[in-house]
Amino acid sequence: MLMKLIFITNDDGVQALGIRTLAHLMSRLGRVVVVAPDSARSGAGCSITPTCPVELSAWHAFDGQDANDLLPEKGEYPIEYYTCSGTPVDCVKIASEQVLDAVPDLMVSGINHGDNASVSLHYSGTVGAVIEATLKRWPAIAYSLRSMEKLPDFSPYYDAILKVASHVLSQGLPPYECLNVNFPVVDELRGIRVGRMARGEWSGEWADAHHPHGKRAFWLTGRFTNLEPDSQDTDYYALDKGYTAVTPLHLDMTAYGSLDKLKGVLEEG
Amino acid sequence: MLMKLIFITNDDGVQALGIRTLAHLMSRLGRVVVVAPDSARSGAGCSITPTCPVELSAWHAFDGQDANDLLPEKGEYPIEYYTCSGTPVDCVKIASEQVLDAVPDLMVSGINHGDNASVSLHYSGTVGAVIEATLKRWPAIAYSLRSMEKLPDFSPYYDAILKVASHVLSQGLPPYECLNVNFPVVDELRGIRVGRMARGEWSGEWADAHHPHGKRAFWLTGRFTNLEPDSQDTDYYALDKGYTAVTPLHLDMTAYGSLDKLKGVLEEG
Repeated sequence: MLMKLIFITNDDGVQALGIRTLAHLMSRLGRVVVVAPDSARSGAGCSITPTCPVELSAWHAFDGQDANDLLPEKGEYPIEYYTCSGTPVDCVKIASEQVLDAVPDLMVSGINHGDNASVSLHYSGTVGAVIEATLKRWPAIAYSLRSMEKLPDFSPYYDAILKVASHVLSQGLPPYECLNVNFPVVDELRGIRVGRMARGEWSGEWADAHHPHGKRAFWLTGRFTNLEPDSQDTDYYALDKGYTAVTPLHLDMTAYGSLDKLKGVLEEG
Repeated sequence: MLMKLIFITNDDGVQALGIRTLAHLMSRLGRVVVVAPDSARSGAGCSITPTCPVELSAWHAFDGQDANDLLPEKGEYPIEYYTCSGTPVDCVKIASEQVLDAVPDLMVSGINHGDNASVSLHYSGTVGAVIEATLKRWPAIAYSLRSMEKLPDFSPYYDAILKVASHVLSQGLPPYECLNVNFPVVDELRGIRVGRMARGEWSGEWADAHHPHGKRAFWLTGRFTNLEPDSQDTDYYALDKGYTAVTPLHLDMTAYGSLDKLKGVLEEG
Protein backbone atom coordinates (compact mmCIF):
# COMPACT_ATOMS: atom_id res chain seq x y z
CA MET A 1 0.00 0.00 0.00
CA LEU A 2 1.29 3.45 -0.89
CA MET A 3 2.16 5.72 2.03
CA LYS A 4 -0.61 8.26 2.62
CA LEU A 5 0.17 12.00 2.73
CA ILE A 6 -1.56 14.02 5.45
CA PHE A 7 -1.45 17.82 5.56
CA ILE A 8 -2.06 19.66 8.85
CA THR A 9 -2.61 23.27 9.82
CA ASN A 10 -4.42 25.20 12.56
CA ASP A 11 -5.15 28.74 13.72
CA ASP A 12 -3.46 28.62 17.14
CA GLY A 13 0.02 28.53 15.62
CA VAL A 14 2.67 25.83 15.27
CA GLN A 15 3.53 25.92 19.00
CA ALA A 16 0.05 24.90 20.19
CA LEU A 17 -0.46 21.59 21.96
CA GLY A 18 -3.49 20.94 19.74
CA ILE A 19 -1.60 20.81 16.46
CA ARG A 20 1.33 18.88 17.95
CA THR A 21 -1.13 16.31 19.28
CA LEU A 22 -2.78 16.04 15.87
CA ALA A 23 0.59 15.65 14.12
CA HIS A 24 1.62 12.80 16.44
CA LEU A 25 -1.71 11.02 15.98
CA MET A 26 -1.75 11.44 12.20
CA SER A 27 1.81 10.09 11.90
CA ARG A 28 0.26 6.73 12.74
CA LEU A 29 -1.79 6.94 9.52
CA GLY A 30 0.68 8.43 7.05
CA ARG A 31 3.47 10.87 6.30
CA VAL A 32 2.66 14.25 7.84
CA VAL A 33 3.46 17.75 6.58
CA VAL A 34 2.54 20.67 8.84
CA VAL A 35 2.38 24.27 7.60
CA ALA A 36 0.98 26.35 10.45
CA PRO A 37 0.83 30.06 11.29
CA ASP A 38 3.93 31.30 13.13
CA SER A 39 1.71 32.58 15.96
CA ALA A 40 -1.97 32.55 16.95
CA ARG A 41 -4.53 33.60 14.32
CA SER A 42 -7.75 33.06 16.27
CA GLY A 43 -10.86 34.38 14.57
CA ALA A 44 -9.18 34.42 11.14
CA GLY A 45 -12.13 32.82 9.33
CA CYS A 46 -11.35 32.36 5.62
CA SER A 47 -9.22 35.51 5.57
CA ILE A 48 -6.20 35.76 3.27
CA THR A 49 -3.21 38.13 3.04
CA PRO A 50 -3.36 40.10 -0.21
CA THR A 51 -1.51 43.23 0.92
CA CYS A 52 1.96 42.09 2.00
CA PRO A 53 4.29 39.16 1.25
CA VAL A 54 3.88 35.98 3.28
CA GLU A 55 6.97 34.23 4.64
CA LEU A 56 7.47 30.47 4.63
CA SER A 57 10.13 28.72 6.78
CA ALA A 58 11.04 25.24 7.92
CA TRP A 59 10.36 25.09 11.66
CA HIS A 60 12.72 23.57 14.20
CA ALA A 61 11.99 23.17 17.90
CA PHE A 62 14.65 23.88 20.49
CA ASP A 63 14.80 22.83 24.13
CA GLY A 64 12.42 24.69 26.39
CA GLN A 65 10.14 23.83 29.25
CA ASP A 66 9.58 20.22 28.35
CA ALA A 67 5.93 19.38 27.64
CA ASN A 68 6.51 16.29 25.52
CA ASP A 69 4.82 14.06 28.07
CA LEU A 70 1.55 15.78 27.15
CA LEU A 71 1.76 14.43 23.58
CA PRO A 72 0.49 11.08 22.31
CA GLU A 73 3.06 8.68 20.93
CA LYS A 74 4.23 9.36 17.41
CA GLY A 75 3.47 6.82 14.72
CA GLU A 76 5.88 5.18 12.32
CA TYR A 77 5.73 7.89 9.65
CA PRO A 78 7.74 11.13 9.53
CA ILE A 79 6.51 14.64 10.38
CA GLU A 80 7.84 17.80 8.69
CA TYR A 81 7.07 21.23 10.16
CA TYR A 82 6.89 24.61 8.41
CA THR A 83 5.59 27.97 9.52
CA CYS A 84 3.94 30.72 7.53
CA SER A 85 3.47 34.38 8.46
CA GLY A 86 -0.05 34.42 6.96
CA THR A 87 -3.49 33.16 7.92
CA PRO A 88 -4.64 29.51 8.14
CA VAL A 89 -6.05 29.77 4.59
CA ASP A 90 -2.71 31.17 3.42
CA CYS A 91 -1.04 28.11 5.01
CA VAL A 92 -3.16 25.79 2.86
CA LYS A 93 -2.56 27.84 -0.27
CA ILE A 94 1.20 28.10 0.21
CA ALA A 95 1.51 24.42 1.18
CA SER A 96 -0.30 23.45 -2.01
CA GLU A 97 2.05 25.33 -4.32
CA GLN A 98 5.34 25.70 -2.44
CA VAL A 99 5.68 22.78 0.02
CA LEU A 100 3.74 19.61 -0.83
CA ASP A 101 5.17 17.22 -3.41
CA ALA A 102 1.81 15.50 -3.96
CA VAL A 103 -1.92 16.05 -3.43
CA PRO A 104 -2.71 15.14 0.20
CA ASP A 105 -4.90 12.12 0.87
CA LEU A 106 -6.25 13.93 3.93
CA MET A 107 -6.13 17.42 5.44
CA VAL A 108 -6.82 17.99 9.14
CA SER A 109 -6.96 21.28 11.03
CA GLY A 110 -6.71 21.88 14.78
CA ILE A 111 -7.09 20.63 17.36
CA ASN A 112 -8.49 24.09 18.05
CA HIS A 113 -8.38 25.39 21.60
CA GLY A 114 -12.05 26.47 21.78
CA ASP A 115 -15.12 24.98 20.06
CA ASN A 116 -16.24 25.92 16.55
CA ALA A 117 -19.78 24.62 16.71
CA SER A 118 -22.92 26.43 15.52
CA VAL A 119 -22.38 29.83 13.89
CA SER A 120 -18.92 30.21 15.45
CA LEU A 121 -17.56 28.21 12.53
CA HIS A 122 -17.97 31.30 10.32
CA TYR A 123 -15.25 33.11 12.34
CA SER A 124 -12.99 30.10 12.76
CA GLY A 125 -9.56 29.96 11.17
CA THR A 126 -9.53 26.22 11.91
CA VAL A 127 -12.65 25.77 9.79
CA GLY A 128 -11.48 28.41 7.28
CA ALA A 129 -8.43 26.29 6.49
CA VAL A 130 -10.65 23.25 6.00
CA ILE A 131 -12.90 25.20 3.63
CA GLU A 132 -9.82 26.14 1.60
CA ALA A 133 -8.62 22.53 1.49
CA THR A 134 -12.09 21.46 0.36
CA LEU A 135 -11.98 24.00 -2.47
CA LYS A 136 -8.76 22.23 -3.52
CA ARG A 137 -10.68 18.92 -3.38
CA TRP A 138 -8.67 17.52 -0.47
CA PRO A 139 -10.79 15.48 1.98
CA ALA A 140 -10.66 17.69 5.07
CA ILE A 141 -11.62 17.67 8.76
CA ALA A 142 -11.64 20.45 11.40
CA TYR A 143 -11.14 19.34 15.03
CA SER A 144 -11.92 21.64 17.98
CA LEU A 145 -12.19 21.21 21.74
CA ARG A 146 -14.59 23.24 23.88
CA SER A 147 -11.79 24.52 26.13
CA MET A 148 -9.62 27.63 25.86
CA GLU A 149 -6.93 26.13 28.13
CA LYS A 150 -3.40 26.26 26.77
CA LEU A 151 -2.56 22.72 27.90
CA PRO A 152 -5.82 20.76 28.05
CA ASP A 153 -5.87 16.98 28.31
CA PHE A 154 -6.55 15.85 24.74
CA SER A 155 -6.20 12.15 25.55
CA PRO A 156 -9.96 11.44 25.88
CA TYR A 157 -10.30 12.38 22.19
CA TYR A 158 -7.48 10.39 20.57
CA ASP A 159 -9.70 7.46 19.57
CA ALA A 160 -12.46 9.62 18.08
CA ILE A 161 -9.90 11.73 16.18
CA LEU A 162 -8.35 8.61 14.67
CA LYS A 163 -11.72 7.02 13.92
CA VAL A 164 -13.02 10.02 11.94
CA ALA A 165 -9.68 10.53 10.17
CA SER A 166 -9.42 6.85 9.22
CA HIS A 167 -12.96 6.90 7.85
CA VAL A 168 -12.28 9.95 5.66
CA LEU A 169 -8.88 8.62 4.59
CA SER A 170 -10.42 5.40 3.33
CA GLN A 171 -13.81 6.65 2.06
CA GLY A 172 -13.17 10.28 1.09
CA LEU A 173 -15.94 12.89 1.20
CA PRO A 174 -18.42 14.14 -1.43
CA PRO A 175 -17.22 17.10 -3.54
CA TYR A 176 -17.47 20.49 -1.82
CA GLU A 177 -18.08 18.84 1.57
CA CYS A 178 -15.90 18.67 4.69
CA LEU A 179 -16.34 17.70 8.33
CA ASN A 180 -16.51 19.94 11.39
CA VAL A 181 -15.74 17.89 14.54
CA ASN A 182 -16.16 19.37 18.04
CA PHE A 183 -15.33 17.78 21.38
CA PRO A 184 -16.87 18.51 24.80
CA VAL A 185 -14.67 18.69 27.90
CA VAL A 186 -15.16 15.28 29.50
CA ASP A 187 -13.06 12.58 31.10
CA GLU A 188 -14.78 10.03 28.93
CA LEU A 189 -16.75 10.68 25.72
CA ARG A 190 -20.25 9.25 25.58
CA GLY A 191 -19.85 8.58 21.86
CA ILE A 192 -20.20 10.34 18.51
CA ARG A 193 -23.28 12.19 17.21
CA VAL A 194 -23.72 13.49 13.66
CA GLY A 195 -25.75 16.71 13.71
CA ARG A 196 -26.51 19.96 11.92
CA MET A 197 -25.24 23.44 12.83
CA ALA A 198 -27.32 24.86 15.69
CA ARG A 199 -28.68 28.36 15.23
CA GLY A 200 -27.03 30.63 17.72
CA GLU A 201 -25.84 34.14 18.36
CA TRP A 202 -23.12 36.10 20.10
CA SER A 203 -24.06 39.11 22.23
CA GLY A 204 -22.58 41.42 24.85
CA GLU A 205 -19.48 41.49 22.72
CA TRP A 206 -17.59 44.66 23.58
CA ALA A 207 -15.75 45.41 26.82
CA ASP A 208 -14.26 48.86 27.41
CA ALA A 209 -10.47 48.73 26.95
CA HIS A 210 -9.94 51.94 28.97
CA HIS A 211 -7.80 53.72 26.39
CA PRO A 212 -5.16 55.80 28.22
CA HIS A 213 -5.90 58.92 26.13
CA GLY A 214 -9.68 58.71 26.19
CA LYS A 215 -10.31 57.21 22.77
CA ARG A 216 -13.18 54.76 22.37
CA ALA A 217 -11.50 51.33 22.34
CA PHE A 218 -13.03 47.94 23.10
CA TRP A 219 -12.03 44.31 23.51
CA LEU A 220 -14.07 41.83 21.52
CA THR A 221 -15.53 39.32 23.97
CA GLY A 222 -19.15 38.20 24.42
CA ARG A 223 -21.26 35.17 25.19
CA PHE A 224 -22.79 32.61 22.91
CA THR A 225 -26.47 31.62 23.08
CA ASN A 226 -27.85 28.47 21.47
CA LEU A 227 -31.14 29.74 19.96
CA GLU A 228 -32.65 26.26 19.77
CA PRO A 229 -31.56 24.51 22.99
CA ASP A 230 -34.36 21.92 22.74
CA SER A 231 -33.45 20.68 19.26
CA GLN A 232 -31.71 17.34 19.72
CA ASP A 233 -30.26 17.10 16.20
CA THR A 234 -27.67 19.89 16.52
CA ASP A 235 -23.93 20.00 17.08
CA TYR A 236 -24.42 22.11 20.17
CA TYR A 237 -26.86 19.68 21.77
CA ALA A 238 -24.46 16.78 21.22
CA LEU A 239 -21.63 18.76 22.85
CA ASP A 240 -23.80 19.72 25.82
CA LYS A 241 -24.61 16.04 26.35
CA GLY A 242 -20.97 14.90 26.33
CA TYR A 243 -20.80 13.57 22.77
CA THR A 244 -18.36 14.32 19.98
CA ALA A 245 -20.31 16.44 17.46
CA VAL A 246 -19.64 15.73 13.77
CA THR A 247 -21.22 18.11 11.24
CA PRO A 248 -20.77 17.72 7.49
CA LEU A 249 -20.46 21.16 5.85
CA HIS A 250 -21.23 22.14 2.27
CA LEU A 251 -19.34 25.02 0.65
CA ASP A 252 -22.10 26.05 -1.74
CA MET A 253 -23.94 28.66 0.33
CA THR A 254 -26.63 29.29 -2.30
CA ALA A 255 -30.09 29.50 -0.70
CA TYR A 256 -31.68 27.26 -3.31
CA GLY A 257 -35.13 27.59 -1.78
CA SER A 258 -35.19 31.32 -2.58
CA LEU A 259 -33.96 31.26 -6.19
CA ASP A 260 -37.36 31.02 -7.87
CA LYS A 261 -39.08 33.65 -5.76
CA LEU A 262 -36.24 36.12 -6.35
CA LYS A 263 -36.29 35.42 -10.08
CA GLY A 264 -39.92 36.45 -10.10
CA VAL A 265 -39.38 39.77 -8.35
CA LEU A 266 -35.88 40.85 -9.47
CA GLU A 267 -35.06 39.47 -12.92
CA GLU A 268 -35.24 41.78 -15.90
CA GLY A 269 -33.62 42.10 -19.32
CA MET B 1 -44.19 56.42 7.51
CA LEU B 2 -41.31 56.02 9.95
CA MET B 3 -37.85 56.92 8.67
CA LYS B 4 -35.88 53.78 7.77
CA LEU B 5 -32.43 53.14 9.26
CA ILE B 6 -29.76 51.79 6.90
CA PHE B 7 -26.37 50.55 8.11
CA ILE B 8 -23.40 50.45 5.72
CA THR B 9 -19.92 48.98 5.87
CA ASN B 10 -17.34 47.60 3.42
CA ASP B 11 -13.86 46.07 3.32
CA ASP B 12 -12.10 48.71 1.21
CA GLY B 13 -12.20 51.29 3.99
CA VAL B 14 -14.21 54.45 4.61
CA GLN B 15 -12.30 56.41 1.94
CA ALA B 16 -13.29 54.14 -0.96
CA LEU B 17 -15.48 55.48 -3.75
CA GLY B 18 -17.63 52.35 -3.50
CA ILE B 19 -18.87 52.96 0.04
CA ARG B 20 -19.31 56.70 -0.52
CA THR B 21 -21.42 55.91 -3.59
CA LEU B 22 -23.51 53.45 -1.60
CA ALA B 23 -24.00 55.96 1.24
CA HIS B 24 -25.24 58.65 -1.15
CA LEU B 25 -27.64 56.25 -2.87
CA MET B 26 -28.99 54.81 0.38
CA SER B 27 -29.63 58.30 1.80
CA ARG B 28 -32.48 58.45 -0.71
CA LEU B 29 -34.13 55.52 1.08
CA GLY B 30 -33.48 56.31 4.73
CA ARG B 31 -31.18 57.61 7.43
CA VAL B 32 -27.68 56.18 6.92
CA VAL B 33 -25.04 55.18 9.47
CA VAL B 34 -21.66 54.07 8.16
CA VAL B 35 -19.10 52.22 10.30
CA ALA B 36 -16.27 51.18 8.00
CA PRO B 37 -12.67 50.00 8.45
CA ASP B 38 -10.17 52.86 8.75
CA SER B 39 -8.19 51.39 5.82
CA ALA B 40 -8.48 48.54 3.33
CA ARG B 41 -9.25 45.05 4.69
CA SER B 42 -9.46 43.09 1.45
CA GLY B 43 -9.67 39.32 1.90
CA ALA B 44 -10.85 39.63 5.50
CA GLY B 45 -13.65 37.07 5.14
CA CYS B 46 -15.56 36.68 8.41
CA SER B 47 -12.43 37.37 10.47
CA ILE B 48 -12.69 39.16 13.82
CA THR B 49 -10.16 40.81 16.14
CA PRO B 50 -9.94 38.90 19.44
CA THR B 51 -6.34 39.75 20.37
CA CYS B 52 -6.20 43.55 20.66
CA PRO B 53 -8.64 46.37 21.36
CA VAL B 54 -10.57 47.85 18.44
CA GLU B 55 -10.89 51.63 18.15
CA LEU B 56 -14.08 53.42 17.13
CA SER B 57 -14.13 57.08 15.97
CA ALA B 58 -16.46 59.50 14.29
CA TRP B 59 -15.05 60.20 10.85
CA HIS B 60 -14.75 63.65 9.29
CA ALA B 61 -13.57 64.39 5.77
CA PHE B 62 -11.24 67.28 5.03
CA ASP B 63 -10.47 68.98 1.73
CA GLY B 64 -8.25 67.02 -0.61
CA GLN B 65 -8.18 66.30 -4.29
CA ASP B 66 -11.86 66.81 -4.97
CA ALA B 67 -13.61 63.70 -6.31
CA ASN B 68 -17.14 64.65 -5.31
CA ASP B 69 -18.26 64.82 -8.94
CA LEU B 70 -17.80 61.04 -9.06
CA LEU B 71 -20.55 60.53 -6.47
CA PRO B 72 -24.29 60.23 -7.09
CA GLU B 73 -26.51 62.89 -5.59
CA LYS B 74 -27.29 62.50 -1.91
CA GLY B 75 -30.85 61.83 -0.87
CA GLU B 76 -32.93 63.75 1.64
CA TYR B 77 -31.83 61.75 4.69
CA PRO B 78 -28.67 62.31 6.78
CA ILE B 79 -25.46 60.23 6.68
CA GLU B 80 -23.23 59.68 9.72
CA TYR B 81 -19.71 58.25 9.30
CA TYR B 82 -17.59 56.28 11.79
CA THR B 83 -14.38 54.30 11.40
CA CYS B 84 -13.22 51.22 13.21
CA SER B 85 -9.70 49.78 13.44
CA GLY B 86 -11.00 46.22 13.10
CA THR B 87 -12.33 43.99 10.33
CA PRO B 88 -15.62 44.38 8.42
CA VAL B 89 -17.28 41.89 10.81
CA ASP B 90 -15.95 43.91 13.75
CA CYS B 91 -17.58 47.00 12.17
CA VAL B 92 -20.98 45.28 12.23
CA LYS B 93 -20.50 44.02 15.77
CA ILE B 94 -19.34 47.36 17.15
CA ALA B 95 -22.05 49.27 15.28
CA SER B 96 -24.67 46.99 16.76
CA GLU B 97 -23.64 47.60 20.36
CA GLN B 98 -21.85 50.95 20.41
CA VAL B 99 -23.21 53.12 17.58
CA LEU B 100 -26.71 52.30 16.35
CA ASP B 101 -29.70 53.56 18.34
CA ALA B 102 -32.09 51.08 16.70
CA VAL B 103 -32.08 47.82 14.75
CA PRO B 104 -31.39 48.66 11.09
CA ASP B 105 -34.13 48.06 8.54
CA LEU B 106 -31.42 47.25 6.00
CA MET B 107 -27.68 46.59 5.96
CA VAL B 108 -25.63 47.01 2.79
CA SER B 109 -21.94 46.31 2.24
CA GLY B 110 -19.65 47.56 -0.54
CA ILE B 111 -19.66 48.53 -3.29
CA ASN B 112 -16.60 46.30 -3.32
CA HIS B 113 -13.83 47.09 -5.78
CA GLY B 114 -13.51 43.56 -7.24
CA ASP B 115 -16.17 40.85 -7.69
CA ASN B 116 -17.18 38.38 -4.99
CA ALA B 117 -18.90 35.81 -7.15
CA SER B 118 -18.46 32.02 -6.99
CA VAL B 119 -16.13 30.72 -4.25
CA SER B 120 -14.44 34.12 -3.87
CA LEU B 121 -17.23 35.06 -1.49
CA HIS B 122 -15.62 32.85 1.18
CA TYR B 123 -12.61 35.23 1.33
CA SER B 124 -14.62 38.42 1.01
CA GLY B 125 -14.81 40.95 3.83
CA THR B 126 -17.72 42.57 1.99
CA VAL B 127 -19.66 39.32 2.19
CA GLY B 128 -18.28 38.54 5.66
CA ALA B 129 -19.91 41.71 7.01
CA VAL B 130 -23.20 40.71 5.39
CA ILE B 131 -23.00 37.25 6.98
CA GLU B 132 -22.51 38.93 10.37
CA ALA B 133 -25.49 41.25 9.81
CA THR B 134 -27.59 38.24 8.81
CA LEU B 135 -26.63 36.47 12.05
CA LYS B 136 -28.03 39.58 13.78
CA ARG B 137 -31.23 39.15 11.70
CA TRP B 138 -30.74 42.38 9.73
CA PRO B 139 -31.83 42.10 6.07
CA ALA B 140 -28.47 42.43 4.30
CA ILE B 141 -27.00 42.82 0.81
CA ALA B 142 -23.38 42.67 -0.45
CA TYR B 143 -22.61 44.70 -3.60
CA SER B 144 -19.42 44.16 -5.62
CA LEU B 145 -18.13 45.32 -9.02
CA ARG B 146 -15.84 43.21 -11.19
CA SER B 147 -13.18 45.92 -11.36
CA MET B 148 -10.19 46.61 -9.13
CA GLU B 149 -9.95 50.24 -10.28
CA LYS B 150 -9.78 52.83 -7.53
CA LEU B 151 -12.20 55.21 -9.25
CA PRO B 152 -14.46 53.13 -11.50
CA ASP B 153 -17.64 54.56 -12.99
CA PHE B 154 -20.37 53.18 -10.72
CA SER B 155 -23.17 55.11 -12.46
CA PRO B 156 -24.36 52.20 -14.67
CA TYR B 157 -25.27 50.33 -11.44
CA TYR B 158 -27.21 52.97 -9.49
CA ASP B 159 -30.64 51.78 -10.65
CA ALA B 160 -29.94 48.09 -9.94
CA ILE B 161 -28.49 48.93 -6.51
CA LEU B 162 -31.60 50.91 -5.59
CA LYS B 163 -33.95 48.30 -7.03
CA VAL B 164 -32.48 45.43 -4.98
CA ALA B 165 -32.21 47.57 -1.83
CA SER B 166 -35.81 48.81 -2.15
CA HIS B 167 -37.04 45.25 -2.60
CA VAL B 168 -35.24 44.01 0.53
CA LEU B 169 -36.24 47.11 2.50
CA SER B 170 -39.92 46.51 1.79
CA GLN B 171 -40.05 42.68 1.72
CA GLY B 172 -37.20 41.62 4.00
CA LEU B 173 -35.41 38.29 3.53
CA PRO B 174 -35.98 34.81 4.99
CA PRO B 175 -34.14 34.06 8.26
CA TYR B 176 -30.43 33.20 7.86
CA GLU B 177 -30.46 34.39 4.24
CA CYS B 178 -28.77 37.38 2.58
CA LEU B 179 -28.06 38.56 -0.97
CA ASN B 180 -24.76 38.62 -2.83
CA VAL B 181 -24.96 41.06 -5.75
CA ASN B 182 -22.18 41.33 -8.34
CA PHE B 183 -21.90 43.72 -11.27
CA PRO B 184 -19.99 43.26 -14.55
CA VAL B 185 -18.02 46.13 -16.05
CA VAL B 186 -20.36 47.48 -18.74
CA ASP B 187 -21.59 50.81 -20.01
CA GLU B 188 -25.13 49.52 -19.83
CA LEU B 189 -26.38 46.51 -17.85
CA ARG B 190 -28.36 43.92 -19.80
CA GLY B 191 -30.56 43.28 -16.76
CA ILE B 192 -30.61 41.22 -13.56
CA ARG B 193 -30.17 37.44 -13.28
CA VAL B 194 -30.73 35.41 -10.09
CA GLY B 195 -28.30 32.49 -9.98
CA ARG B 196 -26.41 30.06 -7.78
CA MET B 197 -22.71 30.20 -6.79
CA ALA B 198 -20.58 28.82 -9.65
CA ARG B 199 -17.99 26.21 -8.71
CA GLY B 200 -14.56 27.67 -9.26
CA GLU B 201 -10.99 27.64 -8.10
CA TRP B 202 -7.99 29.88 -7.68
CA SER B 203 -4.58 28.67 -8.87
CA GLY B 204 -1.09 30.01 -9.61
CA GLU B 205 -1.42 31.95 -6.42
CA TRP B 206 2.10 32.73 -5.21
CA ALA B 207 4.57 35.14 -6.82
CA ASP B 208 8.12 35.38 -5.47
CA ALA B 209 8.52 38.58 -3.42
CA HIS B 210 12.34 38.56 -3.79
CA HIS B 211 13.12 38.92 -0.10
CA PRO B 212 16.26 41.08 0.27
CA HIS B 213 17.88 38.60 2.69
CA GLY B 214 17.03 35.41 0.84
CA LYS B 215 14.05 34.26 2.92
CA ARG B 216 11.18 32.52 1.15
CA ALA B 217 8.52 35.20 0.79
CA PHE B 218 5.61 35.35 -1.65
CA TRP B 219 2.82 37.68 -2.75
CA LEU B 220 -0.65 36.15 -2.85
CA THR B 221 -1.98 36.60 -6.36
CA GLY B 222 -3.46 34.00 -8.76
CA ARG B 223 -6.15 33.54 -11.35
CA PHE B 224 -9.71 32.33 -11.01
CA THR B 225 -11.18 29.56 -13.15
CA ASN B 226 -14.92 28.96 -13.47
CA LEU B 227 -15.11 25.14 -13.30
CA GLU B 228 -18.52 25.02 -14.97
CA PRO B 229 -18.37 27.67 -17.72
CA ASP B 230 -21.28 26.09 -19.64
CA SER B 231 -23.77 26.19 -16.76
CA GLN B 232 -26.14 29.06 -17.47
CA ASP B 233 -27.67 29.24 -13.98
CA THR B 234 -24.60 30.59 -12.13
CA ASP B 235 -23.53 34.01 -10.87
CA TYR B 236 -20.38 33.83 -12.96
CA TYR B 237 -22.26 33.12 -16.19
CA ALA B 238 -24.57 36.08 -15.60
CA LEU B 239 -21.59 38.38 -15.02
CA ASP B 240 -19.81 37.12 -18.14
CA LYS B 241 -22.91 37.92 -20.17
CA GLY B 242 -23.23 41.49 -18.87
CA TYR B 243 -25.99 40.96 -16.30
CA THR B 244 -26.12 41.89 -12.62
CA ALA B 245 -25.80 38.57 -10.72
CA VAL B 246 -27.95 38.19 -7.61
CA THR B 247 -27.31 35.12 -5.43
CA PRO B 248 -29.28 34.40 -2.25
CA LEU B 249 -26.95 32.89 0.38
CA HIS B 250 -27.89 30.68 3.32
CA LEU B 251 -25.74 30.73 6.48
CA ASP B 252 -26.45 27.16 7.55
CA MET B 253 -23.58 25.31 5.87
CA THR B 254 -24.75 21.86 7.03
CA ALA B 255 -24.49 19.31 4.21
CA TYR B 256 -27.95 17.87 4.91
CA GLY B 257 -27.62 15.26 2.18
CA SER B 258 -24.75 13.60 4.04
CA LEU B 259 -26.20 13.48 7.58
CA ASP B 260 -27.82 10.04 7.35
CA LYS B 261 -24.89 8.31 5.69
CA LEU B 262 -22.47 9.67 8.28
CA LYS B 263 -24.77 8.66 11.12
CA GLY B 264 -24.57 5.11 9.83
CA VAL B 265 -20.79 4.96 9.74
CA LEU B 266 -19.70 7.24 12.59
CA GLU B 267 -22.30 7.31 15.37
CA GLU B 268 -21.68 5.36 18.53
CA GLY B 269 -22.67 5.55 22.19
